[in-house]
Amino acid sequence: MIQATICTIGDEILIGQVVDTNSSRIALALEEAGIKVKGMVSVPDNSEEIENCLVKALKDSDIVITTGGLGPTKDDITKAVLMRVSGSKAMVEHAGQLEMVHRILRSRGLDVLPANLAQAMVPEKAEVIVNRLGTAPIMVFRGLGKGSGSLYSLPGVPFEAVGALPDVMGDIRAHYAAENIMHRNIMVYGVAESALAARIAEWEDALESGLHLAYLPNPLTGIRLRLSAYGGDPSEQEKRLDNAIQGLLPLLGEDCYSLGDDTLEHAVGTLLKRYGRTVSAAESCTGGEISHLFTSVPGSSAYYLGSVTSYAISVKEKVLGVPSAVIEEFGVVSSEVAAAMAEGVRRVCGSDYAVSTTGLAGPDGDERNPVGTVWIGVSGPLGTRTKRCQYKNDRRRNIQRFAASALDFLRRYILEAENI
Amino acid sequence: MIQATICTIGDEILIGQVVDTNSSRIALALEEAGIKVKGMVSVPDNSEEIENCLVKALKDSDIVITTGGLGPTKDDITKAVLMRVSGSKAMVEHAGQLEMVHRILRSRGLDVLPANLAQAMVPEKAEVIVNRLGTAPIMVFRGLGKGSGSLYSLPGVPFEAVGALPDVMGDIRAHYAAENIMHRNIMVYGVAESALAARIAEWEDALESGLHLAYLPNPLTGIRLRLSAYGGDPSEQEKRLDNAIQGLLPLLGEDCYSLGDDTLEHAVGTLLKRYGRTVSAAESCTGGEISHLFTSVPGSSAYYLGSVTSYAISVKEKVLGVPSAVIEEFGVVSSEVAAAMAEGVRRVCGSDYAVSTTGLAGPDGDERNPVGTVWIGVSGPLGTRTKRCQYKNDRRRNIQRFAASALDFLRRYILEAENI
Repeated sequence: MIQATICTIGDEILIGQVVDTNSSRIALALEEAGIKVKGMVSVPDNSEEIENCLVKALKDSDIVITTGGLGPTKDDITKAVLMRVSGSKAMVEHAGQLEMVHRILRSRGLDVLPANLAQAMVPEKAEVIVNRLGTAPIMVFRGLGKGSGSLYSLPGVPFEAVGALPDVMGDIRAHYAAENIMHRNIMVYGVAESALAARIAEWEDALESGLHLAYLPNPLTGIRLRLSAYGGDPSEQEKRLDNAIQGLLPLLGEDCYSLGDDTLEHAVGTLLKRYGRTVSAAESCTGGEISHLFTSVPGSSAYYLGSVTSYAISVKEKVLGVPSAVIEEFGVVSSEVAAAMAEGVRRVCGSDYAVSTTGLAGPDGDERNPVGTVWIGVSGPLGTRTKRCQYKNDRRRNIQRFAASALDFLRRYILEAENI
Repeated sequence: MIQATICTIGDEILIGQVVDTNSSRIALALEEAGIKVKGMVSVPDNSEEIENCLVKALKDSDIVITTGGLGPTKDDITKAVLMRVSGSKAMVEHAGQLEMVHRILRSRGLDVLPANLAQAMVPEKAEVIVNRLGTAPIMVFRGLGKGSGSLYSLPGVPFEAVGALPDVMGDIRAHYAAENIMHRNIMVYGVAESALAARIAEWEDALESGLHLAYLPNPLTGIRLRLSAYGGDPSEQEKRLDNAIQGLLPLLGEDCYSLGDDTLEHAVGTLLKRYGRTVSAAESCTGGEISHLFTSVPGSSAYYLGSVTSYAISVKEKVLGVPSAVIEEFGVVSSEVAAAMAEGVRRVCGSDYAVSTTGLAGPDGDERNPVGTVWIGVSGPLGTRTKRCQYKNDRRRNIQRFAASALDFLRRYILEAENI
């Protein structure tokens, strides 16, 4: 199996100023291409440390991917190391990246300084993939380490590093006979991992050889079942995957929310768009999180009308029309208030569907409910329904789980209402 | 200088399933204690790789901190390695952690399985810091590596690892004569790093020896100026820091939003609480992000009444009372609409202050404004004001920057209105 090491370069990582998100994005891409990530290392902006790290990584792995250590103020160190590691004798100017440096700085209304021009200079043995999102080039060095080793140097800015990944992965696939793998994702929400495993055990045991199932749980998006086909040609892989998934879906029923979109807000949005419906939200304990999730999807204005965050009781009453008698009798965190909030925001916004939350994210509970309690309401063509959930996380995580559960409750309601 | 290496253990990191946030939190704590983080490494759940990594780290550093590789299903591998690395001959039960295992599982309503009981078993040479947030103990091994080396093994769950940090850092301070350092944070928003550096250059040049200033910029919270005093006793350090900050504050003026709270939403909340005022928000392009930030602060219900996310024009008109003529004449993304939204939500929620946003987060602009444009409104006792900002990020990041700018605009307005 082809092995890779990921090296992130930068003092800002080692002093804890930034969280390294590049490594995990790169690791995911490599893993999905069937390349094993052997290790991840972070080193400071220091020639000796960078060189030691790269030399060792090239000894241990076929592929080394670095991010960072590039940029107008850092180039010198990292590029000098890359010269030595690659056996380059000179730096050469790369015309394509130079043009990009000019174009990017012009578009930002900035002057082109000598330090910017220097970014287009690369060690002579580098092949360059032009970075269209920033001024630092993506460099590829081949024939290193045991002979077949490659080193990919990517910029450290996450936006640029992630933007470079498709090209880098294309190059890796072209140069390494990585095992032929095809993946499919099946997204599941609302069932525990152990219960899901038990439910599909028989199907999983009967999977033909060359098919492999992985459980990738995430508290906010549920369980991603990743079914992978190894070997064979793509059309044959596709057939095997299709067949297996045909057998799986009846076992999952409504717990499966998508075979493509990887979040509940995407899945709900896809449903609403398909049926030409609109939605609104009334939030108390989730405090805007559901609205934030809806609007994080580009194009959500096609179905998302808006929301009311009714943090104060007065806003619940005045804006959403929740009767004060209901709040007094049942308490703010109650099925009745969740229902009245959903109905209120649906009326106020004029949407087809509405979802609501009222609960206690923490740190404290109230006299009627423990911390972590949420009542969720949905309202639409089938009337109004509510559901109670209980979580045991800290405030931030409780808010996220409340929002995910609310989106899932809404999703199941839409499926029923639209007769799917 | 005392040196440390951070090792994170776990397949889930190397396949890109989770982002390692522990390393950066630990690095920050070490750095603030004057300990240099030499490197960070992530290794899979594999005995040989873990052992190689620890042995090398102990050769290179005085302190090695690991996270992960513990838990009911993983314990075997990591603890066997810790036995060998520490020269322990036997596993012993730790009564304090055993009691905690029982208590935690009982509170979650779960049965205590043999695998759970095994978590309280540790290599005989381990000193245990009881983990009160989870079942895996925190283990400390001393006298390793060059003789004075210590190894701290922390659980991998971020909540538990971060929760263990105060105890671990206390132990590190007690055992290593790390240089005596005291830090103060000065939070600044709304001024570019280069402009800030120029403005305070004279003050910085005149800092007495033993005082050191670091710029820690973050697009969402502005620039954290960290002033550190090295050497001397704490009361003397405090005096030197106080003196230096007294000289700095007049140069910063309103651009400094806090000497304590580290986010704008905290700082705004602190102001509102101090003056007994309330606030509400009307969001279009930020889609609930401002509301989410307000409510992420525990106790925010004391001043935050609620918000309206008016994503659709109909909601702007019906719920917030923005006149349709205004939208038609000036466009949705305009000073006039931002003003009407802020006034509308202030009226509807009955708050002392209100803040609003209307803009284009992306991916597309409209016929009047480029993507990244936002109009921010604030309304309160001094009337209504608006401001235009322009950013060049992707959708997600634009939304976050819009929200931060809106909070800062609101903060400056409150300072003026309350005559501070």
